[in-house]
Amino acid sequence: MSSPFTRRLDIEHPLIQAPMSGSTPPSLVAAVSNAGGLGSLGAGYLEPQAILDQAAQIRALSDRPYAIGLFILPDAFEADLEAVAKAREQLDALMAREGLGVRTSMPAQWAPRYSDQFAALCEARPAVAMFAFGVITPAQLRELKQRDIYVIGTATTVDEARAWADGGADAVSLQGAEAGGHRSTFLHDAEDGMIGLFALLPLAVRAMAAYSRDVPLIAAGGIMDGRGVLAAEILGAAASQLGTAFLTCPECSAAEAWKQDLPRVEDYQVTTIRGFSGRAARGLRNRFVEAMPSAAQGLPYPILNALTAPLRRAAAAAGRGDLLSEWCGQAASLVRPQPAAELVARLMYEYRLAKRTLEP
Amino acid sequence: MSSPFTRRLDIEHPLIQAPMSGSTPPSLVAAVSNAGGLGSLGAGYLEPQAILDQAAQIRALSDRPYAIGLFILPDAFEADLEAVAKAREQLDALMAREGLGVRTSMPAQWAPRYSDQFAALCEARPAVAMFAFGVITPAQLRELKQRDIYVIGTATTVDEARAWADGGADAVSLQGAEAGGHRSTFLHDAEDGMIGLFALLPLAVRAMAAYSRDVPLIAAGGIMDGRGVLAAEILGAAASQLGTAFLTCPECSAAEAWKQDLPRVEDYQVTTIRGFSGRAARGLRNRFVEAMPSAAQGLPYPILNALTAPLRRAAAAAGRGDLLSEWCGQAASLVRPQPAAELVARLMYEYRLAKRTLEP
Repeated sequence: MSSPFTRRLDIEHPLIQAPMSGSTPPSLVAAVSNAGGLGSLGAGYLEPQAILDQAAQIRALSDRPYAIGLFILPDAFEADLEAVAKAREQLDALMAREGLGVRTSMPAQWAPRYSDQFAALCEARPAVAMFAFGVITPAQLRELKQRDIYVIGTATTVDEARAWADGGADAVSLQGAEAGGHRSTFLHDAEDGMIGLFALLPLAVRAMAAYSRDVPLIAAGGIMDGRGVLAAEILGAAASQLGTAFLTCPECSAAEAWKQDLPRVEDYQVTTIRGFSGRAARGLRNRFVEAMPSAAQGLPYPILNALTAPLRRAAAAAGRGDLLSEWCGQAASLVRPQPAAELVARLMYEYRLAKRTLEP
Repeated sequence: MSSPFTRRLDIEHPLIQAPMSGSTPPSLVAAVSNAGGLGSLGAGYLEPQAILDQAAQIRALSDRPYAIGLFILPDAFEADLEAVAKAREQLDALMAREGLGVRTSMPAQWAPRYSDQFAALCEARPAVAMFAFGVITPAQLRELKQRDIYVIGTATTVDEARAWADGGADAVSLQGAEAGGHRSTFLHDAEDGMIGLFALLPLAVRAMAAYSRDVPLIAAGGIMDGRGVLAAEILGAAASQLGTAFLTCPECSAAEAWKQDLPRVEDYQVTTIRGFSGRAARGLRNRFVEAMPSAAQGLPYPILNALTAPLRRAAAAAGRGDLLSEWCGQAASLVRPQPAAELVARLMYEYRLAKRTLEP
């Protein structure tokens, strides 16, 4: 389905595999790109060297365009150490109660240094850079443009889409309220940035029409099959971005327990959670979310994220999905476990079928 | 666009004007039905005699099918009179501060008696009955079926859609998180029933496929133009239900101040509000919502609804939109003020155009 957007990016299908930090190994990214979609490496939690290493691995597996996704953050964070100590105590007690032999520790740093991640991204020079949690600076835009890197900004409201268009993004990815994982909302409270795609897409289409250049819109949130891709196109999207749909691919590195829980997720159980990372994110309301200690809930991102990371790794190793951050969109139970290339082909088959079966 | 659903209801277009209680005078309902859609009388706040009177007025203006919508409620309510007194005091103080010369009073009843409303609906015998806030009883279903009334139940989650299908509904209206007005959620907390249409529609399509009979699904929430109607159809909807889009019709009895605020609504300002009625409803975060007294916020529906009703009437009369319950969906600013018949024709023109302009 060729369009100005797919031609510009030199991809076959209007499909983007979302940059889900922690769950997008090079094999997944390359498989999606080789199948004609745009694979993306979620690099939010990666050290600069790991970004370079994984980019090289992707390049070894595919010569197709791919994306790297980053979280826009300050370079340093100040933690309230008293609050951290209290949260650690409560988190350790929770893990002990749950029989998981793991304790929190003070991390060497709260998060990888963003400006170093950005430099690594520039050096890796993917076809596309995707950003969440804010807008890049004019200097950063210049650095990306000098390297001919296509820039996609993430927006959860029309104001945020405008901020990215004003900031020079080539395209804007609209994160609907349905979407799994961290909310990108940066101009509003997270609760106010929960706009469903049926509203957000047409609103953003109108807002982008005021610009003298074309700003393609990408639809993200709740899209699990080819009918969703077509519906998004009808509402004005140049492409669809799917995250949860790729979680059950064998190439995806999400924990097995998480993959196995997805088909059983009820829509009303998918909620907005701050308790894993300190930042609003959509996922399954499981045991950990229900038992989340009060002191931990007060810590901001990425402080809490760093504290809970080893606990979640231990939970994954122990097959305890109920203690993991099981991020997922609202339509999670529509996952179809299959290799990424097959999923891409199936999505496009369903897309064409839905188009053909429309009565004229 | 003829389909089994439109043929069964004998309507021309797969369009339902939502039963917005308090804003759907007979002239609006009749105009939509005469234009080939399904007009509906939102009768949630109407006394039984008013339901009969307005049904007669609709019948005098149109011989086309139309719907009556009711809220499923107990027949009687017990109010905590101490809490009511405290809320009244605070609400009166707020109105005084805002310069509105109106005070709360103790209403003769908290709400019209539901079973009498139901009896009036049966007597009025519209082509369609729509219900929110719960599921009808088997006895009520029999009464409706004896009169050949088509039953549409409102669901905000897949479980609620199943509850209605199990309860004998002919069709289920899916109220997406984008939708304006009162949330119908009855099996879950209101926050857990905020599922975007991009997720809810495909999930409900799969759930309904398990039934041996056909249960058409209706899409509601954020749909403001014909592209939205087509997108909903592609995701599996037999029809689209639009409320906010009809608010700015001249036939609609919504307050002028409310109508005038809608085009300026930003997506992030449309929030979930309990403070007007005691039940979660989507609308504009205006002055009243920001200043909502704490004691009022604790009162349940319909107690608080009855207390604030005269205040909202006074605000409407004074042109004070900021003190009104300005219900609206998340895409409110896409309203196009025009007569209802023109809006219906325009929606279907856009729908056909969107279909034709899809590349094959």
